[in-house]
Formats: sequence, structure tokens, C-alpha cells
Amino acid sequence: MSARPGRLVVALGGNALLKRGERPSSDAQRRNVRVAAAVIADLARHRGPETGLVVTHGNGPQVGLLARQSELSGGLPSPLDELGAQTQGMIGYLVEDELRDRLPDGREVATLLTQVAVDAGDPAFERPTKPIGTALPQAQAESLARARGWTIALDGEQWRRVVPSPEPIRILEQRSIELLLDAGVVVVCAGGGGVPVVPDPAGGWRGVEAVVDKDLSSALLAQAIDAEALLLLTDVDAVYRDFGRDTARAIRCATVAELRSEHFAPGSMGPKVEAACRFIEGGRGRAPRLAAIGALEDAARILRGEAGTRVVATD
Amino acid sequence: MSARPGRLVVALGGNALLKRGERPSSDAQRRNVRVAAAVIADLARHRGPETGLVVTHGNGPQVGLLARQSELSGGLPSPLDELGAQTQGMIGYLVEDELRDRLPDGREVATLLTQVAVDAGDPAFERPTKPIGTALPQAQAESLARARGWTIALDGEQWRRVVPSPEPIRILEQRSIELLLDAGVVVVCAGGGGVPVVPDPAGGWRGVEAVVDKDLSSALLAQAIDAEALLLLTDVDAVYRDFGRDTARAIRCATVAELRSEHFAPGSMGPKVEAACRFIEGGRGRAPRLAAIGALEDAARILRGEAGTRVVATD
Repeated sequence: MSARPGRLVVALGGNALLKRGERPSSDAQRRNVRVAAAVIADLARHRGPETGLVVTHGNGPQVGLLARQSELSGGLPSPLDELGAQTQGMIGYLVEDELRDRLPDGREVATLLTQVAVDAGDPAFERPTKPIGTALPQAQAESLARARGWTIALDGEQWRRVVPSPEPIRILEQRSIELLLDAGVVVVCAGGGGVPVVPDPAGGWRGVEAVVDKDLSSALLAQAIDAEALLLLTDVDAVYRDFGRDTARAIRCATVAELRSEHFAPGSMGPKVEAACRFIEGGRGRAPRLAAIGALEDAARILRGEAGTRVVATD
Repeated sequence: MSARPGRLVVALGGNALLKRGERPSSDAQRRNVRVAAAVIADLARHRGPETGLVVTHGNGPQVGLLARQSELSGGLPSPLDELGAQTQGMIGYLVEDELRDRLPDGREVATLLTQVAVDAGDPAFERPTKPIGTALPQAQAESLARARGWTIALDGEQWRRVVPSPEPIRILEQRSIELLLDAGVVVVCAGGGGVPVVPDPAGGWRGVEAVVDKDLSSALLAQAIDAEALLLLTDVDAVYRDFGRDTARAIRCATVAELRSEHFAPGSMGPKVEAACRFIEGGRGRAPRLAAIGALEDAARILRGEAGTRVVATD
């Protein structure tokens, strides 16, 4: 497949929708989505009508909130796959609402529910690592773990449920996404990394109690549709060496090999760096690609190479 | 626009997904969706690869359940537009899961989040009629109504919140739906009638606290994409005169004028009959259309005219 100039995948961090420490509310979410939508509309304007624009997003805070509501309501707890699909609908709706009529050239926007195939034999299923839902005191967490078969782990001073985070293998709606992109539609998809599913021996597919990292899914999608650029947007302005220490310094540009030799926070900057590295590695022998990590509000400048952290091929 | 032979809109009643009186659970929902998916796959097989197949669905029981979870969890109650978008994601996901790999000719399936434009001046906003959420004792319902500005109404022996049910005017994602249909993708959309939205004076769109009837939205969509047939599937085998009485008898075929002169249960058979009538009326001067109402399991026979209630033009 030849490179398609202009396809751009923009991954919004969960914190672009509900900021760290912010009290969750519909109003707060709307306000944050409006800021993200303005950034995306701006990107669409800068890049022109030929750019196929994909918007992906996290769902960590939202899925946590829904899981908690489901727990507190006393009914049967909702399975994670259904909760993930719910957040895709809800966040996609908000992004669509704020983006529609703000896009240049009369471009349309559509949200496509996304499922991602994973391997039922992925070693991640033996070793759950991804915390979800409410942080609880040890006794309560242990009691829930026994009752529901959860794995729990210490997160700060409290305990949370942890679930497997298997590797994304294939975006099942890829063809539909490309059909819409080719028609100029801005596509919101792969929310929360997509609902992880495996083929059901009885026919059809079934969801698994797991969460796929949304940055890795975004990189997989960007690779599959041969995007020109992958922007991983979050609430920090760059990848840092020694993040949080006095010696911290922003990385402006680094090779895949350099980044792979360092350690970044799992579940946070780690997957972003890995996603950017995979996308650049997958571009060998193809047209030049851009993979960059930075702050939402710097998106246009990141795309022009004036902000954020840019990941380049090793040789 | 010329008639497009083969476009078929199948509307699944909310009870096709969670049966009346059935205890809500993920397993029950999966089981019911599997039955519906088998019916849809069968329709796709009978009609061949040229048929553009749209699946719409209700969300009444599901939105009620989520509204209740949101109420019971003690946090801020979620607005109806977000709950509706959540159910679209969740139900679309289940339908996709069960349909994928069961469709003939390697056809794909995709769920498109749907919003429907309504008129902010629709008289329905002055007169809320659509019950949603839990049935409550009078005192509790009145207290909630005061606290949240709800309108409530008697439903059987208890009270429920009622919300406006405005007329659907335009399906905002229509072009994307048609793009996917033309590529042979089976499209799940307009779930719960679509999230009702109005243009926001500040830019973009915003949701309203209302519910659009999913049968009327399905008829609007069927009209807009010039479908050949609209099947409104539910858990009764036909439209009945004197439903629930000794004198009840099934209507096998009736004209729009005949049906319009009779009374059918609002919020139940009424909107289905009205949806079928509108679709047939909208087809004047075009290729012949089929509008029919009947039981999910009879879908293929309804399409062949062997079951259900068929609505035909008055002259």
C-alpha cells in the first residue's frame, strides 16, 4: 500500500476530557471537550480538506465513574466490555457535538464504535496490571475481590481492581473507518482503546474483561491506515527525562532506540512513548512519518515541529 | 432521487433486547441480542449482497437502568443525552459482536453513533409525555421532581419522570450511514431514536432532555435514504384492533387512512403505526415500498408478506 499523504491520527488523553483532580460533572466534561474540539478544528483548518482526520480518546476517568455507579447501585456489576462501549458512545457524542459546525469546508464528523481483536492467549491475561474503578481501603477491596474474582493491587495508599491490558491485534472496523475518511468525514473512533474482543467458539465475538491501551490502539490504527502522522496529546508539554525531579528536562527529539533504552511511567508516558516508537518503526520503507507527544493546546505547533517530543527512526 | 432497490431498515423494539418482565442482566441481553442477530443475518442472506441493511433499536429498558444507576450512586444525575449516547454504544456493541461473522458474503457491520436534530420550539417541550427511569411512590417522585425540576406522571400505580418526545427532523449522520451502506456494511444506528440535539447559539450542537421515538426516527431515516422497506419488529405478531380484549383481531393489511382513523396505544403500537404510515406516505410517486409491523422471529415472513401487519397507500 502506498503512503497516503494527509491521514492524521490524533489521540486525546483521558485527561483532555476530565482533568486530573477535577470533580467529574457533565459541565466540566463539556467544557474540556470544547477545548479539544477547537484544537481539532484548528488542525483540520491548517491541514486542508485533503487530510483524513481520525480522533481517538481515552476513557479512564469515565469508565471508572460508570463502574462505580454500577457497583454502588446494588445491581449486577456491568462487565467491562459494556462499560467501555458506553463510554465510547458518550464521549464520541460530546466530541461530535462540539466539533460539528466548527469544522472547516463543511466537513462532517461521525463516531464509529470500535472493537479491537486481542489474543485470548495473551500473557497479559495472566498478569493484570491496569487499575480501574474506585480506590478502596484494603479490607473492602479484598472482600470485593473474593466476591467477584477480581485481582486487586495497591495504588498509592489504597487498593484498586487491576485488569489485563493485552496487545491490540486488529481494529475490526478499520475498513469502515477508511471509507468515511476517504469521503472527508472526521472519524471519532477507538475510544478507550476500543472494546477488546476475541472470537467466540459458539460464533460471533465476545468481549473480555480487559482494557487495551488507547495509545497502542491508536498506533495500530495509524499503522493500519498508513497515516502520515500520529499525535499523542496529553496534559504535559513533552516527554521528560527524570520527570517530577529537579533534574527533569524535556526531550525535544529522540530516536526509537534512545527512547527504548529509557524507562517511562507505565500506564502514563510509557505507552505513549511505545506507541510513537511502534508507529515510526512500522513506517520503515514508506513515506516519512511524524510521531509526536505533547500538550493538547500545542497540537498545531507540535505538527509543525515547534513543540512537544518528536520520535524519529533510529537510522 | 431514484428508488434504491434493496435498502432495508429494520427497527428492533427495546423488548427485543430485554424482554418485558425479564430481570435485567448482561447474560439476558446477550441471549436476546443473539436471537435478533440471527434474524438479521437471515434477512441479509435472503436479500442478497446488494441489500443495504440498516438496524435501528430501542433503548428504553437500558436507559432506564442507567438513569437509575446514576440516581442511586449519589453523584450528579447524568443528563439524558449522555445516557442515550451510552446505550447506543453498549447496544450497538452487543449487536455488532453477535452479528459479525454470522453475516453472509463476508459482510461487515459497524455501529454509527447517531444524533437527530429536533426543533427547540417543538410543542412537545411544553408537554412531556414519555416516561423514563424507575417507577416510584408518589411522595418520592414528587420530592425528586421538586429537587430536579422533573415533570412526573402516573404510570400504572406509581409515578415516573416524563420527558418531551419531539419530532425528529434530520439524522445528522445520514451521509456517513449511506457511505457505509453503499460499501455493503451493515449499519447499526439511530439507537433509542438517536440523541436529540439542537444547534447551540454558542456554536456546535447541544443535547436536550428529551427522547425521540425510535420508530419515528427509523421512518425518517428510511425516508431520507429512500429505503425499499421498513420493518418494525416487536414482541407481538401484528397490529391488533381492540388489543387486549376478547374482540381483539390482527390486522393483516390496512391503508394509511384506515390506520389513521383508529387509536393505538401511545408509546407502544401508536408510534409504530404512525412510523409505517409516514414511510408509505413519503413514498408517493416513487418505487413501491413495504412498511410492516410484526414479531422479530417472523421477520423473513413479514418481508415476504406472509406475516405481520402491512401498511399500504390509501389510493
